[in-house]
Amino acid sequence: MGESVAWVAVDWGTSNVRAWGVSADGGIVASARSEAGMARLTPEAYPAALDLLLTDMAIPAGAPLEVLICGMAGARQGWREAPYLEVPAELGGLALSAVEPLGTRPGLSARIQPGVCHKGVGSEDVMRGEETQLLGLSRLLPGFSGLAVLPGTHCKWAELDGRRLTRFGSAMTGEVFEALAQHTVLRHSLAGDVVESEREAGFDDGVEAALARPERLLSSLFRVRTGALLSGKSPSWCRGFLSGLLIGTEIAGFRNWGGDEEVPLIGSTALCALYGRGLAAIGRKSRIVDATDCTLAGLRAARELL
Amino acid sequence: MGESVAWVAVDWGTSNVRAWGVSADGGIVASARSEAGMARLTPEAYPAALDLLLTDMAIPAGAPLEVLICGMAGARQGWREAPYLEVPAELGGLALSAVEPLGTRPGLSARIQPGVCHKGVGSEDVMRGEETQLLGLSRLLPGFSGLAVLPGTHCKWAELDGRRLTRFGSAMTGEVFEALAQHTVLRHSLAGDVVESEREAGFDDGVEAALARPERLLSSLFRVRTGALLSGKSPSWCRGFLSGLLIGTEIAGFRNWGGDEEVPLIGSTALCALYGRGLAAIGRKSRIVDATDCTLAGLRAARELL
Repeated sequence: MGESVAWVAVDWGTSNVRAWGVSADGGIVASARSEAGMARLTPEAYPAALDLLLTDMAIPAGAPLEVLICGMAGARQGWREAPYLEVPAELGGLALSAVEPLGTRPGLSARIQPGVCHKGVGSEDVMRGEETQLLGLSRLLPGFSGLAVLPGTHCKWAELDGRRLTRFGSAMTGEVFEALAQHTVLRHSLAGDVVESEREAGFDDGVEAALARPERLLSSLFRVRTGALLSGKSPSWCRGFLSGLLIGTEIAGFRNWGGDEEVPLIGSTALCALYGRGLAAIGRKSRIVDATDCTLAGLRAARELL
Repeated sequence: MGESVAWVAVDWGTSNVRAWGVSADGGIVASARSEAGMARLTPEAYPAALDLLLTDMAIPAGAPLEVLICGMAGARQGWREAPYLEVPAELGGLALSAVEPLGTRPGLSARIQPGVCHKGVGSEDVMRGEETQLLGLSRLLPGFSGLAVLPGTHCKWAELDGRRLTRFGSAMTGEVFEALAQHTVLRHSLAGDVVESEREAGFDDGVEAALARPERLLSSLFRVRTGALLSGKSPSWCRGFLSGLLIGTEIAGFRNWGGDEEVPLIGSTALCALYGRGLAAIGRKSRIVDATDCTLAGLRAARELL
């Protein structure tokens, strides 16, 4: 298999890393993944972690090889810092702004793409990895302009004009959900088997409450508990309500972003489905676009535009 | 000491319990506390936990004794459930609505006061313990009507008309702060020695951001991290900013409650000072009222009004 690999695309995340061997005609001919995410590596450990992935893909050591990397390998705590581009950012220039990390084996030419930041006082923001998915989106949806949403641990809202990222914002919704569901009194209301219809009803109630009073989040959260205590709400309803409250509040905060276009949602299918349901509540249409397709299309596009 | 105790006042919380021996003329002549809060006790364990407190106060076993209890002992998971009063609630009737728990030793007459709830669909809410502090407040500030705020793990906002509790709301601000500060990526930005002036500056920045965009909380939270990452903000600033964002968002959610009266703040001095600083940002005056004074005045008043 290794013979036909022309270059290697790598998405280096916080908790894991994925690599794909790409043939000369752009097809994926090999792939590998590991748990060697940024959170587990010192800078010196990256070359060996990369070599392991190449070995897993049966790519012979020693031969010349080009590797293009996006994500957390370029963070300050990563392999080598790849300074942020600033918005408005031309995403076509991602590979051009990439840095070459140290310590790779002879013959291996690795580059790490930058993330994007906003330095405005009072609205500082950063992304690493999503900028590559957004470049990929511009390849997958030629001519697209408008709002795209990337649900996840830290969800990103981004306005694109072709390959130009004009502005973006983050929301800690996914991580806040986990912290509240596991480490507050609300956890007592969430334990139990999931009944999907009840969870959906709870989610819709949560979105409705959040859209009506998005500034009341810290109070509405307590209704996860009082709903169980006073109104006999089930754990499934409570779990859906918590999720709906948080996603609904996030949507309320960004509701004036974008226009009437269908909103691409890039992320895990289950999570994107919830965002789609929430966006529908404010009359916005959306569609799910595969996240891995976006990452790969972004790395391919960055390399071609070099 | 035990000889002069006419009755015993008890505040039974989730994580600890406090008891006071009250003389016939209303003075405190003994006190005791323990870690035997509701979270650590089965219903059967309460009588022994109470006996230990009485022993600590040198109150002789066997003699007739009256004990009036407020707080979580009356929760469903407590000693014996004391059903909630509903708002609007006449707090003068708290002792009248108290329940007698099981298993106390001969001669001991114990009563547990109810909490207060709101059952309105979509705005269910509960308090247990704070209703007694509010009754106490009406005793400490005769003729007071208006808004009182009780900062804590679950902060309560309450509108009083004398001894009548007309409405109230909860906010999980304290518990959300702890969950985010300890169990999210934000913890990396908070570790370090506290420089008070930087923390205050961060707090004020957080309150300002929250009051300007209270619906953007889930995004503004990320600025704790980006402030450290992009603008070199110190851990002290970040800690203050997180606190200011949450308290400011809570205040924004309740900003149309109450009138122009000075707002009594009932809780720990340090936390009440932060709420006072936040309330000042929307032009509201406040004063700190000692929380233990309120609890004791509330139990005394409830007993006298029986």
